[in-house]
Amino acid sequence: MLTLPVYVELAAVVTGALSGALHGLRKGADALGVLALSIATGVGGGILRDVLVGQGPPAALKDARYLIVVGAASLLALLLGSLVARFGRVLALVDAVLLGLWVVMGLEKALAAGLPAVAAIFLGVITAVGGSVIRDLLSGERPSIVGPGELYESAALAAAVVYVALLRGLALPPWPAELGAVTTACALRLLAIRYRWLGPRPIDLVAAWRRLRPR
Amino acid sequence: MLTLPVYVELAAVVTGALSGALHGLRKGADALGVLALSIATGVGGGILRDVLVGQGPPAALKDARYLIVVGAASLLALLLGSLVARFGRVLALVDAVLLGLWVVMGLEKALAAGLPAVAAIFLGVITAVGGSVIRDLLSGERPSIVGPGELYESAALAAAVVYVALLRGLALPPWPAELGAVTTACALRLLAIRYRWLGPRPIDLVAAWRRLRPR
Amino acid sequence: MLTLPVYVELAAVVTGALSGALHGLRKGADALGVLALSIATGVGGGILRDVLVGQGPPAALKDARYLIVVGAASLLALLLGSLVARFGRVLALVDAVLLGLWVVMGLEKALAAGLPAVAAIFLGVITAVGGSVIRDLLSGERPSIVGPGELYESAALAAAVVYVALLRGLALPPWPAELGAVTTACALRLLAIRYRWLGPRPIDLVAAWRRLRPR
Repeated sequence: MLTLPVYVELAAVVTGALSGALHGLRKGADALGVLALSIATGVGGGILRDVLVGQGPPAALKDARYLIVVGAASLLALLLGSLVARFGRVLALVDAVLLGLWVVMGLEKALAAGLPAVAAIFLGVITAVGGSVIRDLLSGERPSIVGPGELYESAALAAAVVYVALLRGLALPPWPAELGAVTTACALRLLAIRYRWLGPRPIDLVAAWRRLRPR
Repeated sequence: MLTLPVYVELAAVVTGALSGALHGLRKGADALGVLALSIATGVGGGILRDVLVGQGPPAALKDARYLIVVGAASLLALLLGSLVARFGRVLALVDAVLLGLWVVMGLEKALAAGLPAVAAIFLGVITAVGGSVIRDLLSGERPSIVGPGELYESAALAAAVVYVALLRGLALPPWPAELGAVTTACALRLLAIRYRWLGPRPIDLVAAWRRLRPR
Repeated sequence: MLTLPVYVELAAVVTGALSGALHGLRKGADALGVLALSIATGVGGGILRDVLVGQGPPAALKDARYLIVVGAASLLALLLGSLVARFGRVLALVDAVLLGLWVVMGLEKALAAGLPAVAAIFLGVITAVGGSVIRDLLSGERPSIVGPGELYESAALAAAVVYVALLRGLALPPWPAELGAVTTACALRLLAIRYRWLGPRPIDLVAAWRRLRPR
């Protein structure tokens, strides 16, 4: 597997940590609250994945750099909140690019641990969206995963399915699968931001059939 | 120990997944939300137990069948919600039968891992009710375990205590302990549904004593 | 490292369990709810730390005494709630003394597992405040960590930083580091209770600079 350099992962962690800190500032959290939401959004998804994979302490705890960059991002937001807030829109775009990377990092760790493809898809999505679920729970909000909300978790799921389809279905090497996943997530997210796409809704075929039937 | 065939556990997972999906449909969740609540209710309790027992990845991730049946149940609810909703009452009855099985599955896994009886009781109850706690947290509701609500968690606790009393107290072989636990949980649940029994309330002996005392 | 005798830890667990049970009684929880909040507050932080450290089952499950004292504390609160409630103020003072001990117990377990200092600080704070976060989530409240609230999580963080500064920065033996951490947490908590200190707030240097600038 193409191992992503750890700097890519740390950049993703910083982006998550800044967006978590901004969320805290907007909700009127105190300094410790901003730090907690920063940690949750920056490394929460990865920690959740590592706890579920069950192979010793999470990477974000074993390697000091993760918590150090989260702390630095948090401090930046605590001292220069209004400056960071001005980059909110940029952060959302960077996040769109990173979403697929998170999915790929979760998927590959799960496959490397010998878990089946369906569990890898689950853990890929958990890695990508778990942090924001923990952030929402800690801020006392209904987690956005239950929606109805923007097309976010669906973009992560689509990217994970594309990855597995390319790697296992078409037996391609990892790099086109990784490229496919990141492109899928990024394209879906940018289109969703641009056209305000919401996540897919349940369809009721029974009710639809009844409406179609001649009376 | 009598090992329950995995098909019994998968049937329990499907029932949980369908009830979680129905919960999502009722709350107006989007497709990903229905899937998330389905996963949480179907395999959340078992995953929580396996993470706490701390012996590698949870069974629901190692064995692909768990997430596949959850996904199928979720898809069924997403496409034929009104049909599934018609079986809501049946699901509640099946759930009453399954409650004790969940408790037994949790207890036996904990005992097999060498944990003490009191921890096994705790993990038996967690296995049975953990999924619905995660479901409630994800849907932004106060978890029903804190009540006041229906006699559900108490039925799970009673079943767990009966199991340990029969196995350890009376030194019976596993199967009567299992039968006793499942019967206890099922009987308490059916009576609670029929007579709208609520969970037990705290009693204040100091206040009771004061009321009794002649003035 | 100076290993704290397990009785100190069990006393801390009882204090947490009683305060969790009182929280449940105040919120009108039923008996199982009081028990659940008692378990969450008494052993939740320690279990969360042990799951994150990832070295097999949590101490609170391997050693039966933890859940037994939690159960006893819970039963006491369920039967003699008004009596226990009278000691609410005492509990808060005892909790101030214990806060630093929780931090130290978390820190030392993380360092013993070979984790870096920054992860040990994180796990020390998690051990001290994790239980009350789980309690708040289960009771359907916004966790107090996000504040604005009393100086509690900040006191735990300060104690953890003092510990690492003394042990690693000044290369002192463990006992003065432990003493420093416990004293810091206790002093900050007592001052916070006495003078109603709130946790520190974010500062916006950009906005401050703009206000200072001559127009």
